[in-house]
Amino acid sequence: MASQEGSARRVAELDTPAFLVDFNKVSTNCAKALAQCTELGVTLRAQTKTHKTIEGAVLQTGGTRRGLVTSTIQEAEFYADNGFDDILFGFPFIPHHMPRAAQLTRRLEKFHVMVDSRVAVDVLVANTPPPGKTWSAYLAVNCGYNREGVWWESSEGEELACLMDKSPSVTFAGVYVHCGNSYSASQPRDVERVREETIERLLHLVGRIKARGVACPVLGIGSTPTCSHPGPSMRQLTELHPGNYIFYDAQQMVLGSCKEADIACCVATRVIGHYPDRNQLLIDCGFSGLTKQGTGQLPSGCCIFRDQPNLKLDKMTQEVGFVNAVKGHLNLDDFPIGCMLFILPWHSCATAAMYPVYHVVEDDAVVAEWRPTRGW
Amino acid sequence: MASQEGSARRVAELDTPAFLVDFNKVSTNCAKALAQCTELGVTLRAQTKTHKTIEGAVLQTGGTRRGLVTSTIQEAEFYADNGFDDILFGFPFIPHHMPRAAQLTRRLEKFHVMVDSRVAVDVLVANTPPPGKTWSAYLAVNCGYNREGVWWESSEGEELACLMDKSPSVTFAGVYVHCGNSYSASQPRDVERVREETIERLLHLVGRIKARGVACPVLGIGSTPTCSHPGPSMRQLTELHPGNYIFYDAQQMVLGSCKEADIACCVATRVIGHYPDRNQLLIDCGFSGLTKQGTGQLPSGCCIFRDQPNLKLDKMTQEVGFVNAVKGHLNLDDFPIGCMLFILPWHSCATAAMYPVYHVVEDDAVVAEWRPTRGW
Repeated sequence: MASQEGSARRVAELDTPAFLVDFNKVSTNCAKALAQCTELGVTLRAQTKTHKTIEGAVLQTGGTRRGLVTSTIQEAEFYADNGFDDILFGFPFIPHHMPRAAQLTRRLEKFHVMVDSRVAVDVLVANTPPPGKTWSAYLAVNCGYNREGVWWESSEGEELACLMDKSPSVTFAGVYVHCGNSYSASQPRDVERVREETIERLLHLVGRIKARGVACPVLGIGSTPTCSHPGPSMRQLTELHPGNYIFYDAQQMVLGSCKEADIACCVATRVIGHYPDRNQLLIDCGFSGLTKQGTGQLPSGCCIFRDQPNLKLDKMTQEVGFVNAVKGHLNLDDFPIGCMLFILPWHSCATAAMYPVYHVVEDDAVVAEWRPTRGW
Repeated sequence: MASQEGSARRVAELDTPAFLVDFNKVSTNCAKALAQCTELGVTLRAQTKTHKTIEGAVLQTGGTRRGLVTSTIQEAEFYADNGFDDILFGFPFIPHHMPRAAQLTRRLEKFHVMVDSRVAVDVLVANTPPPGKTWSAYLAVNCGYNREGVWWESSEGEELACLMDKSPSVTFAGVYVHCGNSYSASQPRDVERVREETIERLLHLVGRIKARGVACPVLGIGSTPTCSHPGPSMRQLTELHPGNYIFYDAQQMVLGSCKEADIACCVATRVIGHYPDRNQLLIDCGFSGLTKQGTGQLPSGCCIFRDQPNLKLDKMTQEVGFVNAVKGHLNLDDFPIGCMLFILPWHSCATAAMYPVYHVVEDDAVVAEWRPTRGW
């Protein structure tokens, strides 16, 4: 990546805490996901919730700016404002979303909503779409994660698909599953089991929908753990929609989705004090710079200190982190006041959301700033 | 409060999740804290980290815009940019802060830093302050909370105070304790014990500093629990610096700092789905709209649903909350898809930080928008 003009800063000069994105790792993670989908013969519809930036979504789409799924309608608007198209608002649709969804349907070539209730389908059917358009809707399916979605075995799925198919206002786009139950896996084999079970269940429902004479163009599943453990059964799908893979994190490492070296983001923090009586360091990264997610998950606390395996983040207040030794005594002199440490977060989606700007780095040079969108 | 022009929106129209601030409650909480300090004969130096808004700090200072403590240097700059003065950057000072602290010392009539290390004092002593100014520094003292601060019994406190007193570049402003150990209290009596112990310990150190011939103008302690349980011993202090009291939250209610009716903020969220098989609702407030703080702390989960004592927030993903019954069966028909619920957060400082805008309400009218600052 060519360095941008005027951004000759070094990482060591940054105010802390700072969210760093490793440009080469992010690029590699995005390219690998695209290549994997090509190999499987499926489309990558990348989830943007992890980063919420233009630059990240450009990498995720291989520069096409086509084919995203967002977690909020505000994100969909942000991407629409920035030249992206074919955007799925991947969240249970409710009537309150209608005016903003209508705007997006009008503005974009392809904007899709996601439904899992009769209330949602009824509001689509009852509203006239913009001229020359229909409401394009995915059906959310629950294949065992138990968040949104119609239960795969229930006849509700076929019924909602039929209702949409019959309505001249609606185009039934296909089915969508977030197999978040892969996050409960304790080993890669469990992730594979979730992947296989999800696909089998989804295909069962799709078979029943087709048996009613309704076409189901898109078959999509997502979650970074399953997409990071691909299998040949995925060739029966048409679309994958992972998101976290752009950054990965300590949680994904534990799940076997990535190696530590693949984690493309970290928090830079400084030592602000030595407390020898309690053999403790304080750092300028508290929960407002990391979140408390991951507390108790790792021997090193809620995160991993890069290249410092004996540091443990035990506790945080708003702006302060409490660092102890994982084992034995911490030699505080090894970490002078003011020195920088680098934290690999447990959950990068949560940590990234705490920052109004990401500092994109190549080695120790800050080569760009990415500004995420936020809000709802 | 006179409604602002053009803000005739009702709460029911807002996109969700939305962070609501009850203007009357916030005003009352701020006025009570000021009155209490007047009664005790101490100054209120309000901590701004809970809200980070201009409007909130105007209320906290009774309109004077004088006398704040901030948790980040960025907040101090934000308030300096908006006509505030007498600002303490209440965080352990490190050499990296020097250029920004110098700017603030130059711009403001009174800007103070907080030190708890020889490294910090040395950098102040070694740097020439702006013309006509000195570096004004508080000494952070640890009276049992075990976060920043020199241990009250250690001679380090007197030594750092003497070093500052001797330097022509530095004005030793006084001592500062955040008695965050009051948050570990299980009942009001424990909070009172922390308050008394903190004051006793602080006065002991101050006696030792004065015995060295060093004046100690300011004696300050803070934390909303202790300041919400005032006692006559506080008359020996000169300054209090609570912050959370502007909003309060479920945690403060449990600590006895406030009643539920005093909690001045909440998150408005909508029901997005019914899942009768698991007798569960989903709402459009996940950890990005609330944070996971408070998980497992209350029978109702990590928060309180206002006027809905049988709702429990059990689990969250980024944008979705999982709501179950506290006890027995939940009648889902009582909560139609699209209906609004109002969540009192466990930790308002953490929840407020998730929002780019706060909607200020009087009854069901949105009368203003407050935009917090963020970043570092």
